[in-house]
Order: sequence, then structure tokens, then C-alpha cells
Amino acid sequence: MTQSNSYQPLTVDTIAPRLGEINAITDHLGNNPNAWSADEVGDGNLNLVFIVKSPKGAVIVKQALPYVRLVGDSWPLPLKRAFFEYHALTRQMARAPGMVPEIYHFDEVQALIVMQFFAPHVILRNFLIAGKRNETMAHEMGLFAARTLFRGSDLSMDTSTRKADLALFADNAELCDITENLVFSDPYFDAGMNQHNSPQLDSIVARLRGDIDLKVGVQHLKAKFCNNAETMLHGDLHTGSIMVTGDETKVIDPEFVTYGPIGFDVGMMLSNFLMAYFSQPGHEVKSGDRADFQEWILGVVDTVWASFCAEFSQLWRTERTGILYQKTLYEDQGHDLAAEQALGQRLHMIWVDALGFAGVEMHRRILGLAHNADFEDIADEDSRATCEARSLELGRQLVVNAAQFAGMAQVIDLTRVINRGNWT
Amino acid sequence: MTQSNSYQPLTVDTIAPRLGEINAITDHLGNNPNAWSADEVGDGNLNLVFIVKSPKGAVIVKQALPYVRLVGDSWPLPLKRAFFEYHALTRQMARAPGMVPEIYHFDEVQALIVMQFFAPHVILRNFLIAGKRNETMAHEMGLFAARTLFRGSDLSMDTSTRKADLALFADNAELCDITENLVFSDPYFDAGMNQHNSPQLDSIVARLRGDIDLKVGVQHLKAKFCNNAETMLHGDLHTGSIMVTGDETKVIDPEFVTYGPIGFDVGMMLSNFLMAYFSQPGHEVKSGDRADFQEWILGVVDTVWASFCAEFSQLWRTERTGILYQKTLYEDQGHDLAAEQALGQRLHMIWVDALGFAGVEMHRRILGLAHNADFEDIADEDSRATCEARSLELGRQLVVNAAQFAGMAQVIDLTRVINRGNWT
Repeated sequence: MTQSNSYQPLTVDTIAPRLGEINAITDHLGNNPNAWSADEVGDGNLNLVFIVKSPKGAVIVKQALPYVRLVGDSWPLPLKRAFFEYHALTRQMARAPGMVPEIYHFDEVQALIVMQFFAPHVILRNFLIAGKRNETMAHEMGLFAARTLFRGSDLSMDTSTRKADLALFADNAELCDITENLVFSDPYFDAGMNQHNSPQLDSIVARLRGDIDLKVGVQHLKAKFCNNAETMLHGDLHTGSIMVTGDETKVIDPEFVTYGPIGFDVGMMLSNFLMAYFSQPGHEVKSGDRADFQEWILGVVDTVWASFCAEFSQLWRTERTGILYQKTLYEDQGHDLAAEQALGQRLHMIWVDALGFAGVEMHRRILGLAHNADFEDIADEDSRATCEARSLELGRQLVVNAAQFAGMAQVIDLTRVINRGNWT
Repeated sequence: MTQSNSYQPLTVDTIAPRLGEINAITDHLGNNPNAWSADEVGDGNLNLVFIVKSPKGAVIVKQALPYVRLVGDSWPLPLKRAFFEYHALTRQMARAPGMVPEIYHFDEVQALIVMQFFAPHVILRNFLIAGKRNETMAHEMGLFAARTLFRGSDLSMDTSTRKADLALFADNAELCDITENLVFSDPYFDAGMNQHNSPQLDSIVARLRGDIDLKVGVQHLKAKFCNNAETMLHGDLHTGSIMVTGDETKVIDPEFVTYGPIGFDVGMMLSNFLMAYFSQPGHEVKSGDRADFQEWILGVVDTVWASFCAEFSQLWRTERTGILYQKTLYEDQGHDLAAEQALGQRLHMIWVDALGFAGVEMHRRILGLAHNADFEDIADEDSRATCEARSLELGRQLVVNAAQFAGMAQVIDLTRVINRGNWT
């Protein structure tokens, strides 16, 4: 693909002149850039995102900025994250076809990806805040997680290719550093960039930050995230990275891609549904009018995990072509049951990891730098603090007690119990 | 360092003309290559190794061959392993000063390292076969393991440097592939390159290869080896990679270097001492004359682990400058005990991993391609089979029961019980 000379951030006014002669883009927007219009819609924390439309079509133009957008140029962040996002997308496209945007154009120097525009899809987080339902999304997200995570691992890949990808993505160190600090460390002490909303949370925050079992458990999870390079992760698989209509589901924004533990993506996803659940009372118009929707979200949690397990098991039985748990050792020796025993134990390990990571994500979204609209959009401070406190309590249970749940039914039961409580 | 033009394997006759003008070498051997003499002493499985002597001194010249020496040119192996050995040695030198050979000269194209000659040191494996003792080695090897493994990890290193090293060593894929196949897979089915010595072992081998719990446990360990990139491993830390005198200890041959779990090096080392223990009856001149020496070896096993734990704990308390278990979160908050709790749990995880890896190593050295002189040098086939069978039995216990030992005393007790048995 063509490369430009020196990095320049785009503006709505320069997009047409700068991109108007690139065939991969004019194929979608037509050859008259004067008829293009661009809107900057980036609501994430890091990048410029434009929707560029013409009478013929529309594309997304995503460009990295040389700093963290949420914070400003006091926090530099390398442009190469676009390179990693591009490589993550190509691999996700191959591993979970149809679920990530098609790439039309990548310019490494401009840190720029031009890709498929999903319409009328909206960000899942906003969809859930609005109390809307999609009956296929939970199943689809289980499939996405299983397919990308299984197929990016030594369970499936040629190992020298996997090692080359491990090395490639290891250079995405600055974005990993954000996760390492903002997710796994800052929330657990009085770090400079932390914020939490309500003085009502002060006592529970103090309790969590004084909780040694929690703080040790979280660091074990951080060690797994940093070291246990099982598969290519999305790395930021929250409800803000998922787009839906009533019956379609797409996954975007994998710039936090890194090799890490399978349970990380799974847990982050589960956690964001659990936070959506806890936030619902804050979005009530009249008392109790989100109760049914809350139960629907718990169904999502259950289905995401069940769908992940079913697809992971299917892939285990049909695509286990990597160097781990080889069929040579099991099925070819008449030991089919060994393969099933190993599968069950691996799913258990993923489960325990996922619950732990889910708990950490629940903490950092309330105590750290980057918050969730699920809670932020709650206008009433008391209501918001109540929702957040419940989420913090479940997070603590999930980290410390991760290995002790009998199954998802018990996690969901505990979630309901905490939601009924009266923490402030 | 200077690079030559095209790879050529050295011979005893070409060493002086080819290396005679390299200052880093003549510094040690003098400027008259005609006075140099070379002996090829490689008794390993992979490389050419020469001792080059002159009236002034002596050096080791180690050169990779483009194939596996043990097998021949039917098994190509890339020359770049010398590059990885060189980089491993520089890091080990910094992390465990004085315990690895000093490097005088590295030539990447020739896959050649000229390094310090240790004399009168002998390979520890031969030393143990001869029934000789060194009263400092066990402690030193615990220190070596703790220092290299702690200081190569996210417990200590700047994480972007660690990630760069992870990426660097990920390219050592072909040597990892040897470990992945020959250690973790081939021994557990009837693979082409396997060999075991005695028909007396056939029944136990059949039993182990039909043991589903064992075969599942081993693949979990393989997954840890392949994915859990905790630290820079030596990667081949058996008694053939250790050189001793009566009171000195050195570590050589890290070409299997890779990022992997801390417990791998520790377990491989423990395992080779346990095999030395089981092999002793085969080296008796009269019945029971190695009994005291066997007990001494069990003391080595105990001391290696205790020394590792003590040094690892010391480094944890004084050099924990990495991104994991940060003092910011613990000591700086008055939670010194959280740091100790985390240390205890990490040592437990390393312990469980190490026992498992030890068990696998005991199997592959008897059932796989690369055997140990400890057993191979036993002339009497019945005696050798008895020693090997005991080792196989302990290996199975260590893999399947790794998480269930109360401590090293119980491992040692089980080892003694198995040694007293009458397996054939």
C-alpha cells in the first residue's frame, strides 16, 4: 500500500484532498472528492475517527494521534499503534470472518486505517444504556472470542508463525503499558490519574485499597496478563468496542492487541456486561422499569460464556492442529477421552482467569482514569454511587474468589444478591 | 565484533590460521598461532567444541553446525542458535556474575563464540557418575537459578526491555521446537526417534503411554513452557550444562534460551539430580557402596531448592523494581505483609511447576531421543533397567501429583521409597 511522506493529522477539511486519489478509497466513495463530507466522531480515548460519506457510500477513517486524546499531548503515545491495529484486524478477519471491519487502505506513516463503515450499527454500550436488546449478540460474541482466541494460539497455529506474531505484537509495549498500569495497578492505590465520582465511595475505596488478599490476587492476574502469551488478544474487548443493530454484531478497535491469556478478553467482556447490569437502576425513569432488562443482561452474561465454551470445544475437537494437546498423543492412540479431559481442564483455567480479570476491570472502570458511560451517564450522584459500589463489591468477590465458583449460575446469583443490597 | 564472509565449519587444523589474527583471542593465546593446539571435545548433541591451547593460555571455541550433531545432516538446525547463545551469555553474565564463561569473541556469520576455558572443571554429570562431591555447588546453583530467573523477569526488568528480549529470543524457534517435541510429546507415544534401552522397560512404558492423567498433565506443562514467558530461561539446565571442581561451579551452553516459566529451569535441574540419585546403584562396585553418596545427592536436591528460595526471596525484598507486585502497591502503603504473601504464593506456583517439569524431564531422558550418561553408562542391562524404571515411576508421580506435595521432604521421602522398591 502507498505510504505518505510525513505524518500529519487529518481534519474534516483535509480528508478529501489527501485521500481523494487513493483507489482503494474511491472504489467506495467515488472519484469526486468534492462530493465527500467528513465528520469527526471519535468518542474513544485515543484516536481521531472520521466518517467520510459520499453519494456513493461511506468509510471510516481512523488515525492515531501522537498522544493520548483523553489526556492530551502531555501523554505521548506512539503512532505505531495503527500498525498493530492493522495487523490485528487482518488476523481477526481471517479467524472470525465477517465480524470485524474490512480494511480498504492502510498507511503506516500516517498511522491511518480506512475501513468499512458499519451502519446503522451503534456502540453496544450506548445501546445497553438505552435499554435496547439484541438477541444474537451474546452468542455472536461467544463465537468471536472462541474463534479469535483459539485460532491465535498454539492450539491451532503453526508455532513458528505464532512465535513471529508474539514477537511482532510484543513491540506494542506502550499500549500494553496503559493496561498494565491503569487496569492492574493504579486503581489499587492513590495514583495521580485516578478519579472516582462520589465521596460516598470513599469508604469502600479505602477498604479495597487496604485489602491485602485483593491486592495480591490482582498482581497474580497482572503477571498472567504480562507473561502468559497464550493467544492474540483483542486487548480491549469491552462494550465500547462492539457495534450492534437489533440483529447484527461487529467488533472494532483492537489497537491494544497483545499476546496474553485467553481469559483476559473473555473476562473483560463479561465484566462490561455485569457493569451494564449494575448501572441499570441509574437509568430508570420510574423505579423498577429496568428490572426485566437487567435480567436480560444476565442472560447475555450466561450466553456469552456458554457460547464461548461450545465454540471453543467445537474448535478443540476439529481444529486442534497446533503443538499443544496433539491428536498424535490422544485420539491417534485411542485416547479420545484424554482430549476431552484436557479440554475440560483448559476451560476451567480460562474460567478462573476470566472471572479474575472481570473483577479487575470492574474496579478500574470506577476507580481509575478511564470510566464507563454506563455509570458516568447517571445524573443522580447517590444513584450512581450505589450502582458503582455494587459493582466494586462484585469485582472484589470475582478476584479473590475466582477459583471457588461452582459455575456461572453462582456468579449470576451473587450478582443479583449484590444488586439487591444497600451499599453506599 | 568482526564478521567473516561465509560460514565454514572449523577443524583442529584451520583454527589457528582462521582465528590467529583476532586480537580478542591472541590476548589469551599469544600472537604465535603456530604454537596453538586444538582438540575437538564436543560431547553434546549439537555443536563443535574445541579447546585451543597455547603456552600462554587456553580458550574454548564453540561453533554451531547447520544440523543436529547427534542425528546428522538429515536434521538441519539453523546457525543462528550461536547468536542466541551469545545474547543469553551476556545477560547471564550480568545477572549471575562469575558463573558463566566470559566471552572473548563472537562471529555471527561463523556461528562462533570464543570464550573462557574452565580448568580443571569437569562436567557435573560425569563428576556425579564418578561418585564425587562438591559441597558448594548445590547452593551456587540455587543462587544461579534465582538470580538469572528473577532478574530476567518483569519482577525486576524494565518491561519494554523485557518485551524486546522476549521478541528477540522468540526467534530461537527451532531449538524450542526440539524441547517442545522431544521433551513434551515424543516420550508419550511411539514416536520415530524414541529409544529405550531394555525390553524390561516395555511394560512400564506401555503403562505410562496409556496413562491419561499423565498425558493431560504433561500437555498442561507444555502449554506453560510454550506460552508462559515469565523469564529468560537457560533452557537446558541439566548436569551436563554445569561444570565443577571440588569447590567451584560454572554454567555453560544456554543455546536453548527462551522466555518461559521460572519453574522450567528449576525443575530440569532438580530432575537431573534425582536421575543421578536413581542411577547410582548401577555404578556400584560392590553392593551398597553408593548408598551414602545417594543420600548426599538428596541433600543436593534439598539445598538447590532451599538456596533458590532464599535467594529469590532476598531479591524479591530488595530488587523488586519491575511492573509486578510493585512496592508502590505494597510496602509504600504499609502493606509489607502483602508483598510477603505474594512471594509465598509465587514460590508455591514455581514449586508446582518445577515438580511437573522435573517429572517430564525424567521421562524424556529414558524414553526419548537424548539419553543421560547417568543411565547409559551402566553396563549391566538389568541394573540399568531397574534404575530407569524407578526414575520413570517418580517422574509420573511428580507430574500428576505436583500440586499435592507438602514440601521437599515429602518428595525426597517418596524418592527413597521408590529407590527401595523392586520395579522391573
